[in-house]
Amino acid sequence: MTKVGIVGATGYTGAELLRLLARHPDAEINVVTSRSESGKPVHELFPALRGFLDQHFADPQTDALADCDVVFFAAPNGTAMQQVPALLDGGVRVIDLSADFRLKNADVWSHWYGQEHAAPGLLDKAVYGLPELYRDAISKADLVANPGCYPTAVLLGLLPLLEEEVIDPSSIIADAKSGISGAGRKSSINLLLAENAESFRAYAVEGHRHLPEITQILNSISVSPVSLTFVPHLLPMIRGIHATIYARIDKAADLQSLFEQRYKDEIFVDVMPLGTHPETRSVRGSNFCRLAVHRPGNGNNVVVLSVIDNLVKGAAGQAIQNMNLMFGLAENTGLQVPAMMP
Amino acid sequence: MTKVGIVGATGYTGAELLRLLARHPDAEINVVTSRSESGKPVHELFPALRGFLDQHFADPQTDALADCDVVFFAAPNGTAMQQVPALLDGGVRVIDLSADFRLKNADVWSHWYGQEHAAPGLLDKAVYGLPELYRDAISKADLVANPGCYPTAVLLGLLPLLEEEVIDPSSIIADAKSGISGAGRKSSINLLLAENAESFRAYAVEGHRHLPEITQILNSISVSPVSLTFVPHLLPMIRGIHATIYARIDKAADLQSLFEQRYKDEIFVDVMPLGTHPETRSVRGSNFCRLAVHRPGNGNNVVVLSVIDNLVKGAAGQAIQNMNLMFGLAENTGLQVPAMMP
Amino acid sequence: MTKVGIVGATGYTGAELLRLLARHPDAEINVVTSRSESGKPVHELFPALRGFLDQHFADPQTDALADCDVVFFAAPNGTAMQQVPALLDGGVRVIDLSADFRLKNADVWSHWYGQEHAAPGLLDKAVYGLPELYRDAISKADLVANPGCYPTAVLLGLLPLLEEEVIDPSSIIADAKSGISGAGRKSSINLLLAENAESFRAYAVEGHRHLPEITQILNSISVSPVSLTFVPHLLPMIRGIHATIYARIDKAADLQSLFEQRYKDEIFVDVMPLGTHPETRSVRGSNFCRLAVHRPGNGNNVVVLSVIDNLVKGAAGQAIQNMNLMFGLAENTGLQVPAMMP
Amino acid sequence: MTKVGIVGATGYTGAELLRLLARHPDAEINVVTSRSESGKPVHELFPALRGFLDQHFADPQTDALADCDVVFFAAPNGTAMQQVPALLDGGVRVIDLSADFRLKNADVWSHWYGQEHAAPGLLDKAVYGLPELYRDAISKADLVANPGCYPTAVLLGLLPLLEEEVIDPSSIIADAKSGISGAGRKSSINLLLAENAESFRAYAVEGHRHLPEITQILNSISVSPVSLTFVPHLLPMIRGIHATIYARIDKAADLQSLFEQRYKDEIFVDVMPLGTHPETRSVRGSNFCRLAVHRPGNGNNVVVLSVIDNLVKGAAGQAIQNMNLMFGLAENTGLQVPAMMP
Repeated sequence: MTKVGIVGATGYTGAELLRLLARHPDAEINVVTSRSESGKPVHELFPALRGFLDQHFADPQTDALADCDVVFFAAPNGTAMQQVPALLDGGVRVIDLSADFRLKNADVWSHWYGQEHAAPGLLDKAVYGLPELYRDAISKADLVANPGCYPTAVLLGLLPLLEEEVIDPSSIIADAKSGISGAGRKSSINLLLAENAESFRAYAVEGHRHLPEITQILNSISVSPVSLTFVPHLLPMIRGIHATIYARIDKAADLQSLFEQRYKDEIFVDVMPLGTHPETRSVRGSNFCRLAVHRPGNGNNVVVLSVIDNLVKGAAGQAIQNMNLMFGLAENTGLQVPAMMP
Repeated sequence: MTKVGIVGATGYTGAELLRLLARHPDAEINVVTSRSESGKPVHELFPALRGFLDQHFADPQTDALADCDVVFFAAPNGTAMQQVPALLDGGVRVIDLSADFRLKNADVWSHWYGQEHAAPGLLDKAVYGLPELYRDAISKADLVANPGCYPTAVLLGLLPLLEEEVIDPSSIIADAKSGISGAGRKSSINLLLAENAESFRAYAVEGHRHLPEITQILNSISVSPVSLTFVPHLLPMIRGIHATIYARIDKAADLQSLFEQRYKDEIFVDVMPLGTHPETRSVRGSNFCRLAVHRPGNGNNVVVLSVIDNLVKGAAGQAIQNMNLMFGLAENTGLQVPAMMP
Repeated sequence: MTKVGIVGATGYTGAELLRLLARHPDAEINVVTSRSESGKPVHELFPALRGFLDQHFADPQTDALADCDVVFFAAPNGTAMQQVPALLDGGVRVIDLSADFRLKNADVWSHWYGQEHAAPGLLDKAVYGLPELYRDAISKADLVANPGCYPTAVLLGLLPLLEEEVIDPSSIIADAKSGISGAGRKSSINLLLAENAESFRAYAVEGHRHLPEITQILNSISVSPVSLTFVPHLLPMIRGIHATIYARIDKAADLQSLFEQRYKDEIFVDVMPLGTHPETRSVRGSNFCRLAVHRPGNGNNVVVLSVIDNLVKGAAGQAIQNMNLMFGLAENTGLQVPAMMP
Repeated sequence: MTKVGIVGATGYTGAELLRLLARHPDAEINVVTSRSESGKPVHELFPALRGFLDQHFADPQTDALADCDVVFFAAPNGTAMQQVPALLDGGVRVIDLSADFRLKNADVWSHWYGQEHAAPGLLDKAVYGLPELYRDAISKADLVANPGCYPTAVLLGLLPLLEEEVIDPSSIIADAKSGISGAGRKSSINLLLAENAESFRAYAVEGHRHLPEITQILNSISVSPVSLTFVPHLLPMIRGIHATIYARIDKAADLQSLFEQRYKDEIFVDVMPLGTHPETRSVRGSNFCRLAVHRPGNGNNVVVLSVIDNLVKGAAGQAIQNMNLMFGLAENTGLQVPAMMP
């Protein structure tokens, strides 16, 4: 039984970790911390967990974290980098769902996140937690940087094309749409139902923090430098990311079979039949990514449709998938559940 | 391993049976029928089941139903009563999610459902599948009439009050609100997103089919005749029922403790703390009913708030709870899962 | 041309006043104040007003208010009672959309609003701005207390029944459901889309501030004391109130004709045909109240369905209707617009 | 007073014509036809129009159409081309909101719409009803082909760039998202709330009927052939289109000023300030198009964000704008109304 700690469990990724771990057969939740809700029963904040979890939120400084086999950080950016070094020193493995260890270059990180990095020496040690790309390294890692939600959807849609050099790496456009839970559980007028229902908008067109994260991974695969235009949008719904990815085709290829081959052994990546359009609800609440690949009018562009649940494969589910790998469990333990539809 | 058949699995209750049974450890899906989709892979209609279910829809006349231990009917009203007698004769047990066997009186049934009953002789034999009221009878039953969604929410909110004679049975009002999946998966302009999002309405104020069903059960508990005013409403969302129940208090009682006592051994009924208001999302995708009991201004009326997921505790989940009872499994097998929140 | 000022126009009722006044032919917006956004162009906050309104938000202490013919207060409770006395002294008429002048008894007001009343001497002078009940007094008033959204929906549904003594005043239940804009434009986790979409809940069952407001008016009509059980609920949508009102019938009456007679000269109250169910979207963005009256199963209870747009007939629209009356304009000036549907 | 007829007014574009014409000061609705609802009062289908419109739906063969000054066709594709020739012969001017007269080439039309064109001789005579491009021709036209909703949003976003040869015409991508009312008011499971709320998907990636319509107009402007990749998506909301348009920059230009200059005299096109992101709700219910132009990271791509209400500027509002031009009325008559927000 893997002993688990969660730091910062009052947000949506934390709540989703709790929901998924509550039914994980080989993990037990040892401690759950929160700065703001310390002392309160967890199920008072999340009534859906009544009957599943008896813990109270602990203070973030609790010693109980040091007794865990693994600690998940679901706290705001800038928190994990303060606490992780001591935990690693104490032999605790860490899966960080924030952005603290995703970029390899501390200066780039500082530019996008507006603060000095507190543990730059760990950036090289951290493994980017995308199992479909770094499975072996993850299984041996002490520190996993769990990918962002947009990067997961975009990267899984691009890997086969870049690995096989089918597209022009300078021509990539990712038009991404996210449910509003991706913006977190925080008191902001911009996130109100009355401001977002029955409306749709782009945001951060000038530059989003997930852009350097995606580019870093794409460049590590691509033979020539990647140029990516990334435009995120906000959907009037809670969960789900849909990335519509465009690129110019450089080399003839059977695109459908390319994708099917690349992902034939991947439990959580489902290549849909030719000509289909995956819906975000087909992955809601589940750890799957569904992909469809199109070449409209048999023209020069490939169009990839990629859907995930931003809180599961885009956050907590992928984190548990990584935990399973790190602790020698079957990769889908606790995650082999179909989406909720309708 | 219980061998299961499902008749009419193209609607929402059928789809929900498939979703829940796909992860049930002691049941295997033997056959799934559909008149309209016969021959098509089930996951073509429900992509969320890709990787979980390989079956094709079979013709409703398939012999495979006779080889099942239990057959669920998720077909429109009027279907089960045609097929059930033969199955029972063949030793197959039946859980009917339609209304065919819920009323004891064939004439009343005909009045509300607009057709003659095809198997009136089975009405007495059928057990009403509300485990919190008829657990023992269900475990021995060959034919279970699975309760309607509104009746489940309303009955669980009223049982403690009527059993202990705390309220005036002639004063009951149930103002119920349902997500639109309760109206089924059918091509109707009235159910379009463009007709229902950002709107709310009552319907069937003059009389809804669930009224006689609720009244029949209430009268079987109450010492004096029940008079119920039942007004259903349609919510601009997919899942969830919220019943707000009003009645005049006849006898002093500690209402909170009355509810807690009544349900203290019930896995799936959660009496919320004093002064709280359950949200439908706190049970979304789960088999729980959450209840809160209020006495506004310490006045003459009790107000009970009762929430369920109409497709789970209000249909497919309760049906599986009944199956578990009928086949000697732990009552929560395959159902011990927290709600999806957010 | 009536010169208008608006105090506190950054909330939803203020924004709605701006939207409606932008097309009012006989009113011109003289000044718009905001504490938090002072100095910023109004259309920066509300881009929908680009091209319609060039003003900047002014400081609340601006002298420009004194130059108006009428000032609308759309500020939080407790603001108007501080500023109104000076304005009235200066000959400016006031329509207060907050709750400051709705209750006649200062002690009751203090109990529900948690502060001393700053201008108790004005409570008697203030006219409750429900034109269908107090039209004449409104037209002569200097200070109008604009009704709350729930009270408007509930009162219009009950007036005919109480005025004609058709129901038992001690038996009234109002089960009311509101779109989330009724809770205002404020940064609160409880109002996020991710917390409210796909969910429904009751709130304030123990007592809501609109209860004494409704009761005060009902008691002024009723021959015997009114007992009202009022339960508000939050709908997963932006605009619209649906009140479902229950009462015991005391006296035989043709309910349909009673309602049609009572409202036959009212422009903004529409009695729907027998047997119908008004949808909130049928009044969205408009100043109408639509009513339907039912007697389920020809029993002892009357059920009234009443829908309004909480921001229009429940706030800004009714305020402008009152302004029209106060300044001798046709009552529907600027308001004769059908709802947006779909 | 312009006498107006509407053919096929039971769909959403027809309903929107009724809503907008009900408050148009210089138009009167003479006749409204419907095949399916003939004989029924219009407000029975659309209760929001109670008090505004007393007509009954007439049979589509009614002579009353011949007595109109202008007839709007809001019927399914393939209807107008049957009836228009006779109306034009009788001196009635026509604005067709269907696709029948949008393409100049009858073979291309047949390919995309799956039937022979019944009036190919009128294709050249028809004027494409985009006032911002063809104002003069529209004002003299007898037959206006009202643009599709996607084409309106995409074309307004591209005109300045192509007219000034700023972009490479072979590099255009339009990622478009539409509210579900764009799919029409028809009984289809695919359009149910329970199938679409809390979900998002692309559709018709292989080719959508609006592609040849957009390309035809773009090619008429562009100096070299246009290659457009157009991917439509369905939003879980009723109204609104958001087109995110990408193209490679060929020539240095001050993009913001380019857009501001191009549209400085256009009433209904609003170029937003630099760095902003228009929301679809900022045009909901109104005839405006709001545009923002970006150059992410100062790179090689321009990104244009274009929002309209698909039922107003994308259909009925633009049709009335065209009518105003055709009959010498001020272009914004009956349309100068701000969006409903929230």
